[in-house]
Amino acid sequence: MNFFERFDHILQSKNSLLCVGLDTDVEKMPASVRRQPDPLFAFNRAIIEATAPFAAAFKINTAFYEAHGVAGWQALTSTFKYLPDDVLKIADAKRGDIGNTAKMYARALFEVLGADAVTVNPLMGLDSVAPFLQDEKKGVFFLCLTSNAGAEDFQHFSDGERKLYEVIADRVASWNERRNCGLVVGATHPEELRGIRKIAPQLPLLIPGIGAQGGDLQKSVQYGAGENGRGAIYNSSRAIIYASSGEDFARAAAAAAERTRDELNEAKKNTCNCSQLC
Amino acid sequence: MNFFERFDHILQSKNSLLCVGLDTDVEKMPASVRRQPDPLFAFNRAIIEATAPFAAAFKINTAFYEAHGVAGWQALTSTFKYLPDDVLKIADAKRGDIGNTAKMYARALFEVLGADAVTVNPLMGLDSVAPFLQDEKKGVFFLCLTSNAGAEDFQHFSDGERKLYEVIADRVASWNERRNCGLVVGATHPEELRGIRKIAPQLPLLIPGIGAQGGDLQKSVQYGAGENGRGAIYNSSRAIIYASSGEDFARAAAAAAERTRDELNEAKKNTCNCSQLC
Repeated sequence: MNFFERFDHILQSKNSLLCVGLDTDVEKMPASVRRQPDPLFAFNRAIIEATAPFAAAFKINTAFYEAHGVAGWQALTSTFKYLPDDVLKIADAKRGDIGNTAKMYARALFEVLGADAVTVNPLMGLDSVAPFLQDEKKGVFFLCLTSNAGAEDFQHFSDGERKLYEVIADRVASWNERRNCGLVVGATHPEELRGIRKIAPQLPLLIPGIGAQGGDLQKSVQYGAGENGRGAIYNSSRAIIYASSGEDFARAAAAAAERTRDELNEAKKNTCNCSQLC
Repeated sequence: MNFFERFDHILQSKNSLLCVGLDTDVEKMPASVRRQPDPLFAFNRAIIEATAPFAAAFKINTAFYEAHGVAGWQALTSTFKYLPDDVLKIADAKRGDIGNTAKMYARALFEVLGADAVTVNPLMGLDSVAPFLQDEKKGVFFLCLTSNAGAEDFQHFSDGERKLYEVIADRVASWNERRNCGLVVGATHPEELRGIRKIAPQLPLLIPGIGAQGGDLQKSVQYGAGENGRGAIYNSSRAIIYASSGEDFARAAAAAAERTRDELNEAKKNTCNCSQLC
């Protein structure tokens, strides 16, 4: 089963477009969790148990673990191991380097951590991303148009006809020989998302920014989910995992995850999903 | 002392433009080192002792450590601790993400590992790089024009007047309020390096590719080293640390480092270093 098939199978069987982002921060946990020997993993375990029924994917943001050095990498490893097999395990690492180095990053993320998919920064071009694309079962979401304000600085650089993010979308579509390429497109740019969907109608999208970043959920689904309604997953991190800062954090996260999954499914129903993305 | 002052001080006091790259690979070590309990660190310790007299900087490529998971991060931490204080310690991590995540990467690299400088991918724009620029003592080398073939794919994208890598150089120069911004420019593009030097005459450059990647050392110094001859450091990884695959690897690395330092200093002498970069 290649990555596209797996992606589609999971979204269908879980009846969910939701990706839960584990941007786990010790300072935002309840005191009882913070006092545990491995607080990052203790928090994640509770969040995973509570939210997995509603999630198609979990996105683990490597920065939040690296900030704790060796202990953080231990928690990162334990978290990947703990994730159930019926969700996509995404290492949000945004790596990218020359070929022999990219090979090492691919090994770290796919083999050592056991990720099903990774995020990759495409700035260094094809030979820097090729090592991530060798295994058809493993997916790669390339940064295309990100959800932050700084996306304007370079991603909108234009040759008069096309902007850089459109060139990236087009190029990534051409790299998709093994049906394992996807794109990262922020929910904060729904109109641009529509254009990207036209350039790359087949590629799965990872769409961050529907939670704390305030992206437009309805339009992101309308323009992103594609003809069968299973062309994208929508990430929310802070709005789910820190839904409550108290001892009821796991229950609150479950409720936020369920609500977000339902909102996404509702948005999908209200979308005509024709090929015009109208 | 801000990063620019520190950079200049070290290059002058060590009389060297050489950066030794610790892309440490267990498969390329002599058997006696590979058998040790922490082979990555054992190899690095021997290489650091042998080459530090000739180096202004060490660049530690995080991918090669992450590929070993928790044990790799332990070796990465030990390696940073072991580096002497009279060299620049560069974490070659090529990170880049939205603000709250970038803050975590900055903490991981500057505080947990103790790096003096990092490499950062600027694709996500100013708010994604700002957290790395808060401390004037810590340097940030932004990817501008990389040494690999894939650099053509996006870095050469042009608006008719300027290419993306020139826009990056210009923008990074405008971010340099604390005198701690630099650029990564591959030695494999000496003519383009000349143009970048004109756009950003003040920024320190990190120039990879003079070793195994076959970049032009003479021209890279001519166009990169700047008016005072101390505007750039030149990285060689494989050609130094794997100069011998036998038990004499440390001695061979020392000889290769000394020779490369001397070649760089010789190239500097043969350069007119006027402001025209002729």
